[in-house]
Amino acid sequence: MSATTPPLSRRLDSLQSSAIRDLLKLTSRADIIGLAGGLPDAELMPRDRIAAAAETALSSRAVLQYTESPGWGPLREVLAARESARTGRPLSIDEIFVTHGSQQALSLLAEVLLDPGALVIVEDPAYVGALQVFRAAGARILAVPLDSEGMRLDILRDLLAKGERPAFVHTVSNFHNPGGVTMSSARRRELAELADAHGFWIIEDDPYGELWFDQPAPAPVATYSPNVIRLSSASKILAPTLRVGWMIAPTKVCRAVELLKQGADLCGSALTHQIAADLLADTDWLTAHIDKVRNIYGERAHALVDAVRTRFGDRITCTEATGGMFLWADFTDGTDTQALLPAALDAGVAYVPGSAFAVSTDYTHSMRLCFTTSEAAILTEAVDRLARAHAAAESQGAVGNQAQL
Amino acid sequence: MSATTPPLSRRLDSLQSSAIRDLLKLTSRADIIGLAGGLPDAELMPRDRIAAAAETALSSRAVLQYTESPGWGPLREVLAARESARTGRPLSIDEIFVTHGSQQALSLLAEVLLDPGALVIVEDPAYVGALQVFRAAGARILAVPLDSEGMRLDILRDLLAKGERPAFVHTVSNFHNPGGVTMSSARRRELAELADAHGFWIIEDDPYGELWFDQPAPAPVATYSPNVIRLSSASKILAPTLRVGWMIAPTKVCRAVELLKQGADLCGSALTHQIAADLLADTDWLTAHIDKVRNIYGERAHALVDAVRTRFGDRITCTEATGGMFLWADFTDGTDTQALLPAALDAGVAYVPGSAFAVSTDYTHSMRLCFTTSEAAILTEAVDRLARAHAAAESQGAVGNQAQL
Repeated sequence: MSATTPPLSRRLDSLQSSAIRDLLKLTSRADIIGLAGGLPDAELMPRDRIAAAAETALSSRAVLQYTESPGWGPLREVLAARESARTGRPLSIDEIFVTHGSQQALSLLAEVLLDPGALVIVEDPAYVGALQVFRAAGARILAVPLDSEGMRLDILRDLLAKGERPAFVHTVSNFHNPGGVTMSSARRRELAELADAHGFWIIEDDPYGELWFDQPAPAPVATYSPNVIRLSSASKILAPTLRVGWMIAPTKVCRAVELLKQGADLCGSALTHQIAADLLADTDWLTAHIDKVRNIYGERAHALVDAVRTRFGDRITCTEATGGMFLWADFTDGTDTQALLPAALDAGVAYVPGSAFAVSTDYTHSMRLCFTTSEAAILTEAVDRLARAHAAAESQGAVGNQAQL
Repeated sequence: MSATTPPLSRRLDSLQSSAIRDLLKLTSRADIIGLAGGLPDAELMPRDRIAAAAETALSSRAVLQYTESPGWGPLREVLAARESARTGRPLSIDEIFVTHGSQQALSLLAEVLLDPGALVIVEDPAYVGALQVFRAAGARILAVPLDSEGMRLDILRDLLAKGERPAFVHTVSNFHNPGGVTMSSARRRELAELADAHGFWIIEDDPYGELWFDQPAPAPVATYSPNVIRLSSASKILAPTLRVGWMIAPTKVCRAVELLKQGADLCGSALTHQIAADLLADTDWLTAHIDKVRNIYGERAHALVDAVRTRFGDRITCTEATGGMFLWADFTDGTDTQALLPAALDAGVAYVPGSAFAVSTDYTHSMRLCFTTSEAAILTEAVDRLARAHAAAESQGAVGNQAQL
């Protein structure tokens, strides 16, 4: 009997791989300097400290077994203490939920918070990992542009005045990926007030907050309202391999996420939870470790900004290097970053065109530059290569800038 | 301004915590012998070998970074070799996908294979972790009872003859949880033929296949059709803390699962993937390790069966101890296992009433007994306690058997 191949779900038709992932496959050639990636630098991750914590954790058999769905208790205790200090209010462990990276929190929250056709408001440009999940959940998406103080709340107010009622607003409040900006304290307070007044949730997605360069990030949005679900992660400050993210949310949200986590994957790894708890509880060591990462990323970011300004002058405007992992740069001369990319790859440098992060605006002339994984001299060389590619493309009229000028 | 608390999704109304989880919270008292749990024995897990593998993995920095969504490449290579040997056909790594425990495979497959309202056929009694996911996905569920040779294919044929067209049939083919039985080779072949003829998928959920006591499990259902998606796991043979499950499926299914995995949690832990690969590739050690676990579980299972037969005679029929982690026992005297439970807990023994696994049949007189985590003498004591509870409840007419006799 010849086999009939059964079908897959029709909902897959609407899913697509992230454009960035596809781009990264193209740009992983050894001779290309990667400003396109979004990875923290493995050279700065605390390998020895993780190895010591793994050894300690594995001295007991309890670490081998299944753990609780909301996360290993002592890890939640450490996180409660940490996040209480950050948000300025005492949190119980019932308000802390450990997820498999903060991506899992986004995925489970989409199920917990969204009815079919619900409205989600995101930032423009948007974090694509969030956008992908909200779209797959069937949400209607509206986008509010960023400026140098973060989400444009005047535009959010207009949407609310027109009767738009989001289930939640998603914001990367600190050192935005990809936008590079940080929401001001005034806007944090105002956003929280809007959530309270209109009855929507805020998802404050904050993996980068501790990676500040010159001054600490403002107090979290979660400081200002109980309707904020705050996400953070060990991936950028310790190591992605731990797959430890966390959510701070009202108990009823944590309980709902727990029901879904049971079906999604039962529980996390007690081993990686114990390693994370060990490192996060070792506060003197942790402070020194994060200081080191911050300082090195800061040097790299400043080197990249300086090189961009030196090479391109007023033909590019770019965000200040204040923290996180990314700069956002806009060509002011009409250069189309998608059109420029092949020439850039030929010259040996990769970036992500702004269009990959676009929701409502097109960001034709923008690009995201990641400064984490190369040293300053390499970043300068990357910008030299970009300038050569730009000059070559420009002389051939190949990057769309002729029309603009 | 006083805050309005925003709502949660209405779909949560249909979700509930597993009855077994709730029961386990009640039965975790130290003085209760637990036959209710479903955990492998942490005392038998290879702690030293895992610690050595962790140390090796952490000698390189690559293990700290994000890994590929389908799983760390060398782990998929090891799994491809293993599963090629089991299924008797050469598998490429494009047909292997590593999930965060096999529960995650069930969850992602529900999205990949089910359109809204699609039909899923499960076994009765059913693995509740699967049932929970299929229900949450909005599937229509039909159940086919088990007998001593596994799923009753005569009943499945009747459903197909009536025009029922499942998206997939889910089976725990080896040493069923909770049913204790193993599908015969003849039925495996016949089920595969039905899938090919009618164009449905089979999900062969096989976490227990290597834990056989007297003779190896039959060749997998996946041997007989390309339309079988086969799931297995390191949790029962190595340790749950690794959170390593795997799926063997046609490439197009793996690609679809990859898209969903990106949104669900990006990727697994390179650390636990490398540990799993190290242990699974060490075949001489692994064989000896699994032999030890099999032999000890086998002794315990036989002790439990013997005690049940000695104490209850023909008042209980129970499955043979052939492998896995569970026995399924039916009172033949009309005892209601839900009604008996409080007396059993008072006597210091816990089990899961059959009703917790019921789909269409009610299993009022049945119970699941787990034999993995207690030594033989303790299991015998557990059955003594159960017999005392049964006698006490019976003398009070409290277990529903009066009506039956």
